[in-house]
Amino acid sequence: MPARERESLIEKLLLEKIRSSVGDASFHIAFRDEGLPEMNGAKAGNVVIRDRKALTHLLLDPEVGFGDGYMQGQIEVHGDLVRFLEEAMRGMRSAGRKKSWSNRMLCRWLGFVQDNTRKGSAANIHHHYDLNTDFYKLWLDKDMVYTCAYFPTPEATLEESQTAKLEHVCRKLQLQPGEKIVEAGCGWGSLALYMAAHYNVAVRAFNISHEQIQYARAQAKERGLTDRIEFVEDDYRNISGKFDAFVSVGMLEHVGREHYAELGNVIRNAIGDSGRGLLHFIGKNRPAAFSVWIRKYVFPGAYAPALREALEICERNAYSVLDVENLRLHYAKTLEHWLERYEQSVDRVSAMFGPEFVRMWRLYLAGSLASFRIGQLQLFQVVFAGPACRQIPWTRAHLYAGDAGVEGESQWAHVRF
Amino acid sequence: MPARERESLIEKLLLEKIRSSVGDASFHIAFRDEGLPEMNGAKAGNVVIRDRKALTHLLLDPEVGFGDGYMQGQIEVHGDLVRFLEEAMRGMRSAGRKKSWSNRMLCRWLGFVQDNTRKGSAANIHHHYDLNTDFYKLWLDKDMVYTCAYFPTPEATLEESQTAKLEHVCRKLQLQPGEKIVEAGCGWGSLALYMAAHYNVAVRAFNISHEQIQYARAQAKERGLTDRIEFVEDDYRNISGKFDAFVSVGMLEHVGREHYAELGNVIRNAIGDSGRGLLHFIGKNRPAAFSVWIRKYVFPGAYAPALREALEICERNAYSVLDVENLRLHYAKTLEHWLERYEQSVDRVSAMFGPEFVRMWRLYLAGSLASFRIGQLQLFQVVFAGPACRQIPWTRAHLYAGDAGVEGESQWAHVRF
Repeated sequence: MPARERESLIEKLLLEKIRSSVGDASFHIAFRDEGLPEMNGAKAGNVVIRDRKALTHLLLDPEVGFGDGYMQGQIEVHGDLVRFLEEAMRGMRSAGRKKSWSNRMLCRWLGFVQDNTRKGSAANIHHHYDLNTDFYKLWLDKDMVYTCAYFPTPEATLEESQTAKLEHVCRKLQLQPGEKIVEAGCGWGSLALYMAAHYNVAVRAFNISHEQIQYARAQAKERGLTDRIEFVEDDYRNISGKFDAFVSVGMLEHVGREHYAELGNVIRNAIGDSGRGLLHFIGKNRPAAFSVWIRKYVFPGAYAPALREALEICERNAYSVLDVENLRLHYAKTLEHWLERYEQSVDRVSAMFGPEFVRMWRLYLAGSLASFRIGQLQLFQVVFAGPACRQIPWTRAHLYAGDAGVEGESQWAHVRF
Repeated sequence: MPARERESLIEKLLLEKIRSSVGDASFHIAFRDEGLPEMNGAKAGNVVIRDRKALTHLLLDPEVGFGDGYMQGQIEVHGDLVRFLEEAMRGMRSAGRKKSWSNRMLCRWLGFVQDNTRKGSAANIHHHYDLNTDFYKLWLDKDMVYTCAYFPTPEATLEESQTAKLEHVCRKLQLQPGEKIVEAGCGWGSLALYMAAHYNVAVRAFNISHEQIQYARAQAKERGLTDRIEFVEDDYRNISGKFDAFVSVGMLEHVGREHYAELGNVIRNAIGDSGRGLLHFIGKNRPAAFSVWIRKYVFPGAYAPALREALEICERNAYSVLDVENLRLHYAKTLEHWLERYEQSVDRVSAMFGPEFVRMWRLYLAGSLASFRIGQLQLFQVVFAGPACRQIPWTRAHLYAGDAGVEGESQWAHVRF
């Protein structure tokens, strides 16, 4: 057999194996351009693998192999990338394919080198959030809210929906004027600024991203809120002081499963038996490792817990869970907006970080969108209260009252003590 | 030392030990009538222990000792019974007193003899629910809803609030005309009848209480709903058929921790990957045994799970938790209504079952009320959906829409597949 033909046979076998591992997904996979003309019927795009190394890597570890190949330009997706990723993820889920040996080894290795100790967290957070505020400005909303929005209707704009999310969180926390609130992981400060401006509370907000804290402080100054907000550049484990409520939006993903007990103690020290709190985080239906490829390049140390895992934080403090809401579809919608804005700015992103980064970030956004759409990821908001908390809302109707909230009356249940 | 004095000294010591075990609770405890004249300052009633045996039992096992003594008339509470129980429970909780040896042994023994196997469940359910429908009519609402009501406002009547609860559950389930619903543990049929009448769905409702099923069938006939409801006198483990939604209100407490896997399988068989469901149950902040005294006399085999324990049922099926609501204060309010109606009917209850039963049932209602007030018990409503469920509500606003619901429009997220 001539070398060329032998090679082609091996490639055909490899391709066949890859195709079978994604079950009945409706896209085509080809090596170089072979067979491309016949691929026009594909519903979810065509995948072209440009070299043998990428093909082999894809077979050894579909997740990281695809991510690396796509990022480096050796794997191309012609058609709708998000739709293709949905199909591939769904196909692999229904084919019941187990993680490959190489993926599991890498997963374990990352778990070890990216552990969220104080030092590890500093490095992990720096990797992502200190990237460059101008970069994030290209595709986030005007208030720089880098977490799931709350769309009152699917047609609402991203700006409206990020404001609606901040309002939704404040209503869930039932903030009262003059209360003291602590926030763990405050991003660019949007929630802290909103709480202080609209609910007249005193906020102490923690974050270990230097870039973000700098930005948040400048915002507080600009809006004349420095007397009511303190932005602290420090680890959540160093939170001190006594507060009426604890809030954390999009930080639990960076805490790491093995540090939940520490977080539980931090919350208990902050709000005691009488406080209340809210955790907003990306979760899963069942315990499972977070995407290895995303941890490798985008979010070192990330972990999205199953709801039961996250609730250990409440249970160990004997806190009552008052309300859990799943906003998975809202995160999919948020990511649609981000991805759309991102695509409009790829030239500027490329000028900033080069074409490989452009593809990496696109895959991260598109892959997250696909994951929320098919339910591989969930978004939970959990409201809890200490056993001696006197402020338990009678119903949740106030969350949905047209003009309640900011100045509205809240209906308290006055629990006798 | 003369015998009378020695006896009095021992009693004094025993009393002292009992007092110290309830911490700083604000009530007085006396043996016979000794010291009663000085007890007028007590905020939460006076307790008089009538004989030595009751005193000793109380010391060996405060929970069962008090329950037995109260039921048998050897322990009296002068003043507000509910308030006294709240104080005693709170006092024991803050004193951090561990369960006594005798209580733990009894707890284990009951766990063994009251196991909720098919045969065990039949006996356990018969003990409580087959008591006598006329008895329950004395203190439940007109629709015989024997679970936590939903009070739109604290001032709403019990009848309004039980109807509101049925409506709240239907809205959470997002029932669509023509759908097939299965209910596990249907009581006297109130929810099944409401769903069929107001949402035009076909209901198959299971219960192993013969008395309740008889009553429910008669109601279906009277309301002309027999073509849409089938009341089945059988164990939830024998549920067969395929359904759009699963619902269970107030049954999980009778399933028993060790049978959750069976229940999980039943739900999976009933609604598969595409269905949705709701579990409404009494829970706790942390795993702990259910009151031994209540299991001994009132609810054999009962267990109120921590939320995390109950969520295992969802997690094992990879179901998404969509919504959790805690209605603890609503159960306290429901019990206030039940207790008030019960007290108005004690003469008839006494004629039915005698004075000892009157005191037993009063203590069960008052103790439950106190437990919900102080947060010893919680009430969770959990909504979940299979990974392929196409009907995920966009927000929860429809639950609170004034006139939505029955004929109202629901806003669906159309998840593409």
